[in-house]
Amino acid sequence: MTMAYDGHLFHGFQKQIKDRTVQETVEKALFKMTKGKEVAVHGSGRTDAGVHAKGQVIHFDYPGNIPPQNMIRALNSMMPLDTIFLAGAIVDANFHAQFDTIGKWYRYRVDLGRYTDPFKRFYTGHYPYPVDIERIKLALPALLGEHDFTSFAASGGVIKNKVRTIYYANVEYDEGQNEFIFDFVGNGFLYNMVRILVATALEIGNGRRPIDDFKRLIMVRDRNEARATAPASGLYLQEVYYDEIPEQFRLK
Amino acid sequence: MTMAYDGHLFHGFQKQIKDRTVQETVEKALFKMTKGKEVAVHGSGRTDAGVHAKGQVIHFDYPGNIPPQNMIRALNSMMPLDTIFLAGAIVDANFHAQFDTIGKWYRYRVDLGRYTDPFKRFYTGHYPYPVDIERIKLALPALLGEHDFTSFAASGGVIKNKVRTIYYANVEYDEGQNEFIFDFVGNGFLYNMVRILVATALEIGNGRRPIDDFKRLIMVRDRNEARATAPASGLYLQEVYYDEIPEQFRLK
Repeated sequence: MTMAYDGHLFHGFQKQIKDRTVQETVEKALFKMTKGKEVAVHGSGRTDAGVHAKGQVIHFDYPGNIPPQNMIRALNSMMPLDTIFLAGAIVDANFHAQFDTIGKWYRYRVDLGRYTDPFKRFYTGHYPYPVDIERIKLALPALLGEHDFTSFAASGGVIKNKVRTIYYANVEYDEGQNEFIFDFVGNGFLYNMVRILVATALEIGNGRRPIDDFKRLIMVRDRNEARATAPASGLYLQEVYYDEIPEQFRLK
Repeated sequence: MTMAYDGHLFHGFQKQIKDRTVQETVEKALFKMTKGKEVAVHGSGRTDAGVHAKGQVIHFDYPGNIPPQNMIRALNSMMPLDTIFLAGAIVDANFHAQFDTIGKWYRYRVDLGRYTDPFKRFYTGHYPYPVDIERIKLALPALLGEHDFTSFAASGGVIKNKVRTIYYANVEYDEGQNEFIFDFVGNGFLYNMVRILVATALEIGNGRRPIDDFKRLIMVRDRNEARATAPASGLYLQEVYYDEIPEQFRLK
């Protein structure tokens, strides 16, 4: 099933002992629907506290026969209003929302206003400093392709292999909102990777780093070189891919 | 001073005994700035719990001499992030933010999506039923001019005179957001008036009321005839006018 959620009142996707999470909220709804059966929910991946999703994908083995449209309606009627189920399908018993992904699209919104906009504080990052989008546009292509992204992974992760492929990296200026919209599509992303990429891109745009710094940072494989992490509030898991990467996001 | 606020965590503008309000929050900040002097804050009018402002105007008598730009900075540094001061000016000692208004602009956003959008639940109303914007466009002009709006005022208000002048009433469809954007400019609005006007307009658009029903409702002066009230979440106090109504909003 595909779902969206406003992450600002969730402590992330993954179940925790105390705090409210997306996974727990879905499992509770399924517990009610099955009148007391525990149904494990598997997501395509975790999203951190405060991170949003427009197209998170989950799977679960439901003990019963409910057509997808009815399942969407039933879950939406029982879930809190900061979540919404958008689509559903009955899949092969082998399907796994996490292990079968071939790619993900993340978006990051950066508000450029002088002050923190009260209406955007939970939904964007904020960069009130001078920034030249052309410098960022020149910098981003260095990320494309297969690289070791050790410099852009938060320390403490358990995943040893830091090699990922980025298919698409782009930034646009939204004049109406006075925002930068970053889009990244890749075969997978390390812990905090998008948020570190965005923070570094903004420093390049600001002139505090040279335009070709992404190249150097990939080479040095040192997390201490790419210091900043953009806040969770601007990050959106847009789509998760299982069959193919959409045409417009493929490496040219 | 002109300020914006995200109303969803405020119990409205006006001070209350217990709940968090905008007025109280500003007064607390001024109390700190003056190191313990009570400075009364006067708004252009109340906004209800959950109602937003893009351009609320307040005045206060500050016991000291702080240039407007510094006052904006000082207040913004002390106020919570769901408020923002946008402009300020030193005004005549007689100026009163409420009594000197000559007009206000309210906006109302209606999300038309099938389900409640998790990202919009605090920022729009929601109308998931069929609705024909052309019917609403034909209906709105009946509101223009001076009328007794008794049918559109929540009961329980203390204000006896229900005659107001509406200078501008418009609706547009925002395709990107799949929303109706209603704009109303008038010399004043009764309690819940914009929210009742919007709810009635949607019923006209849906075909549950005839296109000329605004005319009849104005005539009958009966609150029971215009039943529904659109939720607070979609309402924005956009601007408050003291000198003149902007050209584009004047009665043609």
